[in-house]
Amino acid sequence: MPEFEAPLYTQLVRRLGRDPVSFHVPGHQYGRALPDEPFALFRDIMGIDVTELEDTDDLHHPEGVIREAQQLAARCFGADETFFLVGGSTAGNLAMLLAVLDPGDAIIVQRNVHKSVLNGIALARARAIFVAPQIEPVSGLPTVPAAADIETALDRYPDSKAVFLSTPNYYGMHVDLAPYAEIVHCRKLPLLVDEAHGAHFGLHPACPPSAMMSGADAAVQSTHKTLTALTMGAMLHVRRGRLSMDRLRRALTAVQSSSPSYPILASLDIARAMIAACGPAWLESGMKAASRLRERLAERNGPFAALEPAIGKACSAVDPMRIVLRDETGALSGILLQCLLAEQGCWAEMADDRYAVLLFGPGATESDADKLVSALDNIAAEMTGSQPVADAGQGPIDVAAYAADPEHRIGEPFAIPLMPPAEDGTEIVPLEEAAGRTAAETVIPYPPGIPLLYTGERISIAQIAAIRRLAAAGARFQGATDARMRMIRVMAQQ
Amino acid sequence: MPEFEAPLYTQLVRRLGRDPVSFHVPGHQYGRALPDEPFALFRDIMGIDVTELEDTDDLHHPEGVIREAQQLAARCFGADETFFLVGGSTAGNLAMLLAVLDPGDAIIVQRNVHKSVLNGIALARARAIFVAPQIEPVSGLPTVPAAADIETALDRYPDSKAVFLSTPNYYGMHVDLAPYAEIVHCRKLPLLVDEAHGAHFGLHPACPPSAMMSGADAAVQSTHKTLTALTMGAMLHVRRGRLSMDRLRRALTAVQSSSPSYPILASLDIARAMIAACGPAWLESGMKAASRLRERLAERNGPFAALEPAIGKACSAVDPMRIVLRDETGALSGILLQCLLAEQGCWAEMADDRYAVLLFGPGATESDADKLVSALDNIAAEMTGSQPVADAGQGPIDVAAYAADPEHRIGEPFAIPLMPPAEDGTEIVPLEEAAGRTAAETVIPYPPGIPLLYTGERISIAQIAAIRRLAAAGARFQGATDARMRMIRVMAQQ
Repeated sequence: MPEFEAPLYTQLVRRLGRDPVSFHVPGHQYGRALPDEPFALFRDIMGIDVTELEDTDDLHHPEGVIREAQQLAARCFGADETFFLVGGSTAGNLAMLLAVLDPGDAIIVQRNVHKSVLNGIALARARAIFVAPQIEPVSGLPTVPAAADIETALDRYPDSKAVFLSTPNYYGMHVDLAPYAEIVHCRKLPLLVDEAHGAHFGLHPACPPSAMMSGADAAVQSTHKTLTALTMGAMLHVRRGRLSMDRLRRALTAVQSSSPSYPILASLDIARAMIAACGPAWLESGMKAASRLRERLAERNGPFAALEPAIGKACSAVDPMRIVLRDETGALSGILLQCLLAEQGCWAEMADDRYAVLLFGPGATESDADKLVSALDNIAAEMTGSQPVADAGQGPIDVAAYAADPEHRIGEPFAIPLMPPAEDGTEIVPLEEAAGRTAAETVIPYPPGIPLLYTGERISIAQIAAIRRLAAAGARFQGATDARMRMIRVMAQQ
Repeated sequence: MPEFEAPLYTQLVRRLGRDPVSFHVPGHQYGRALPDEPFALFRDIMGIDVTELEDTDDLHHPEGVIREAQQLAARCFGADETFFLVGGSTAGNLAMLLAVLDPGDAIIVQRNVHKSVLNGIALARARAIFVAPQIEPVSGLPTVPAAADIETALDRYPDSKAVFLSTPNYYGMHVDLAPYAEIVHCRKLPLLVDEAHGAHFGLHPACPPSAMMSGADAAVQSTHKTLTALTMGAMLHVRRGRLSMDRLRRALTAVQSSSPSYPILASLDIARAMIAACGPAWLESGMKAASRLRERLAERNGPFAALEPAIGKACSAVDPMRIVLRDETGALSGILLQCLLAEQGCWAEMADDRYAVLLFGPGATESDADKLVSALDNIAAEMTGSQPVADAGQGPIDVAAYAADPEHRIGEPFAIPLMPPAEDGTEIVPLEEAAGRTAAETVIPYPPGIPLLYTGERISIAQIAAIRRLAAAGARFQGATDARMRMIRVMAQQ
C-alpha cells in the first residue's frame, strides 16, 4: 500500500505497544478483563479503546493527535475545519442546527429530511419553514426542493437564519448544490447540508462533487456509511465565515459523549488515510462491482432491473456505488425482495414498497455482484407464475398530484414540538374540518414517502386537498390515526 | 466459565458465522474493505459492526435480541426497564432531563454535577435550582447535598419537576440515597441519579447499594467505566410510575445516533452476562488488587497514602475499586504524580492539585498493585529532598469557609444558557459591585472545585462573600477573567 499517515490511529497502536498498565476507564483494561472465550472478537479493539490520557488528546479540546487527524481530514475533504463525530451524522445535524438557531428563530428546510434534523430544530426551540422537494419522475421519489422555491422562501421569510438541504437521498439521487449555495450566500446566510449518504462524493471522477466543493458552509457525512469508519463514525466539515465556530464547538460538546470512543475516532482517521494514500483507486472496486451488477441485470432483461433516474433538475447525478433494484413484474415488493435476498445471504441496505437499495462499499467485489445475480436468478425461478402483490407500489401518478400544488410547496413557519402531544390534549376531526387546526399527527403518504404534514404544523386547505388527492390516487398513510385519512388527529382547541 | 447468556452478542456472532454478503452500511463490509495491514486491530470487531437488519433488531424500536438483552439487564440491575446507551452517560443524563422538563420548568439539582447535566437542563430550556453539596471533611471534597437542604429546596420551590443527584463522586465517595428517595417520593416527584461512576454498585457485598436499589426512579450508569463495556457503552435504568416512558423513549431517540454501534451494544450485553454468570466473584480480583495497594501503602507509611474519607453524613461509603492517592509531603501535586506514574507505565484515571485517582477494573490483579507500588517507590527515591510545590493543594480550611454559608446553599431558579454569552453583551465589574447582576462567567474555586457561580446565575451577596472568603483562603479560580476574583464578568445591563 502507498504511504499511509494516520496520526491518531498510529499513536494508539504505539502506546499499546508499550504495554501500559491501566488504572483508568474503561474498566475492561485494554480487554484484559474479559476471558478469552467467547470474547475473542473484542480483544483487539479493546487494546485501543482508551480514554483521554496525557498522550491520547481530547476530542472536546483537541491539541494533539486528534487535532492533527482532524486537520488532515479538513484538507482531504476541502473544509476549513473538520470535526470528528462519534454520535453519527445525528450528532452533526443536531450541532449544526443548535449552532445557528436560537429559540424562536426560523430556518428554511427541505421537507424530506432525516428525523435528526427535525430533532435539532425542536431542541433549538426554533421554527421550521418546510419547502417541498422536487420529484424524480421515473421513480416518483423526492430529492431537493427547486432552487426557485428556496429563493421564494427566502424572499417570503428574509429573517430566516439558514437554509438546510439534504442530498444525496437514500436512493443515491443527487442534486447539484452550487446554484443553491449562490442563492443562500447572496442573503449572507449559511447553507447547511446533510450529506450522510455521500461521504465518498468528490473523491472519484465518477462521483458527484461533495457539498463542501459545491459551496456548503457546513456538511455532515456518515463516514461509516459509504467509507470504512466504524458505525457512528461521521464527520462535520465547516467553512469559516457564515457560522460561529464557538457556537458549533459548544453545541458539539453538548450533544456528544464526554468520553468518546477512540476506536471510532481512529477508524475516521484511517478512512481518511486510505483516501489520502490510495486516491480515487480506493473506490474503484466497489464501483466496478456496482456496474457489473447493472450490466448483468441489463443482459438478463427482467424481471429485476436497476432504477435509472431521469437526469435533470430533480436529479442531476446518481451515486455510482448504489443500485436501486425493482421487480418490474410487480410480483415482489421491495420489502419482500429484500427478505428473499437475505434468505440467500445477500443483505440489502433498505427497502420500500417498490425498491430494494443495494450499497457497494469500497471493498465490494465483482464476485459480490455475481452472488447477488445468482440470488436474483434463484428468486426469479421460484417466482414464475406468482401474482403481483397489493403493496408492490403505484407509479408516480399520485406523486404528480402531490407535486402539482404550488401553494403547498412552501409551508408556514412553525415550532416543531420536541415531545409528542399528550393524547388528552388532542381530538380526532374529519379531514375537511381540519383547515387552520394544528396537526397532532404526522402524515406521510407512501408513495412518495414525503411528510406532507408534521405534528405541530398548522393545516392548510392546500394540504387537505393534497392529502385527499393522494388518498384517491391510492397512497397509503402508515401509522395514521385513520389509514384512509378521512379523519385526522389535531390539537384540541383551548 | 459458568453458563453464559448474551442474546444480542450471540446473534451477531451467529449471523457472522453464516458468512453474509453485505450490500448495506457500514461500508467496511464486516472489515473486508480494509487491507490486512495495518488494520488487523479492526478486523474482528468489524465482523459484528452491522446495522439494523431483519435479524439484528433496532435500538430505537426493540422487538428482538436488543429487547431481550435489555430485559435481562433490567432484571440484573433491578429496574423495571433498562435502555442501552451508545452515547455514554451523557446521552442518559440528557434524556432523563428532557423527559421530565419542559421549557420554563424548574428542577432541584446538586450543584456539583457533570456538565452533561447542565447541558440537559439547558437543552430543555428549564431552570436549575442548585443545592450546594456536603463536604467530606478529610479531603474537603464535595459529595451530595444534605437531605435537609434538598427538603428545604422542595419546600421553597414546590413546583419543581424532579430532584437530580450524582453519586458516587469521581473520588469514589458515596452517599446513601434511600433517605433522599423518601423525601422526594413524598412530594410525588421522581429522583434522577447520575451514577456514572457506580455501574458496579450493588453487585458485590463490599459495594454500596445501587441508586435503583436505593429507590431512584431513573439512574444512569457508565457500564464502560467500572465494568467491561466498550467506551460510550452505558445504561439507563428506570422504575415505572413517576416519569413518562413515552417521553423518555422520545428523548433517547432525539439525542442518540439513529445508527447505533452494535459492538458497543453487544459489549453492554456481555458486561451484564458476565455479572449474571459469575456473580460477585466477577469483581473480586479488582477489589483484591485495590486492597493490596492500600495495605502496601500502609506498610510503607509514606510518602504516598490512600485517602481515607471520614465515614458519616457527607460520605456514607467508599468505592472499594478506587484508590485516591496523595503525596503527604506535599512535594508532588496530584497532577505531577499522575505524570510521573505515566512515565513508569502506570496510567491513572485522573488527578487534581492534590490527588491522583486510580481505578481497579474487574480484571485488575494484585500484580497491577505491585507494579504501582514499585513505580511509587521509584518516584519516592527520586523525590528525596525536593521542595513542596506551589500547587500541591490547600487543605479543607477554605472549604469550611465555603460550606459555612447557609444562605448560599440553595440557589435561586435560573435558566442555564445553552450558548456562551457574546462577549460584547458582557462587561467586567469589581466583584463587590456585582450583587444582583447576572454572571457571564462560571466561577469554580479550587479547592473544593465546586462551581460557586454559573454563567446565567444572578449573583447574590452571599456568593460574593463566599468568593472573597475563598480567595482570601488561597483558593485558585481557573479560567476566571480575574484569577484573583477582584473583578468578574457579568451580562451588560440593557
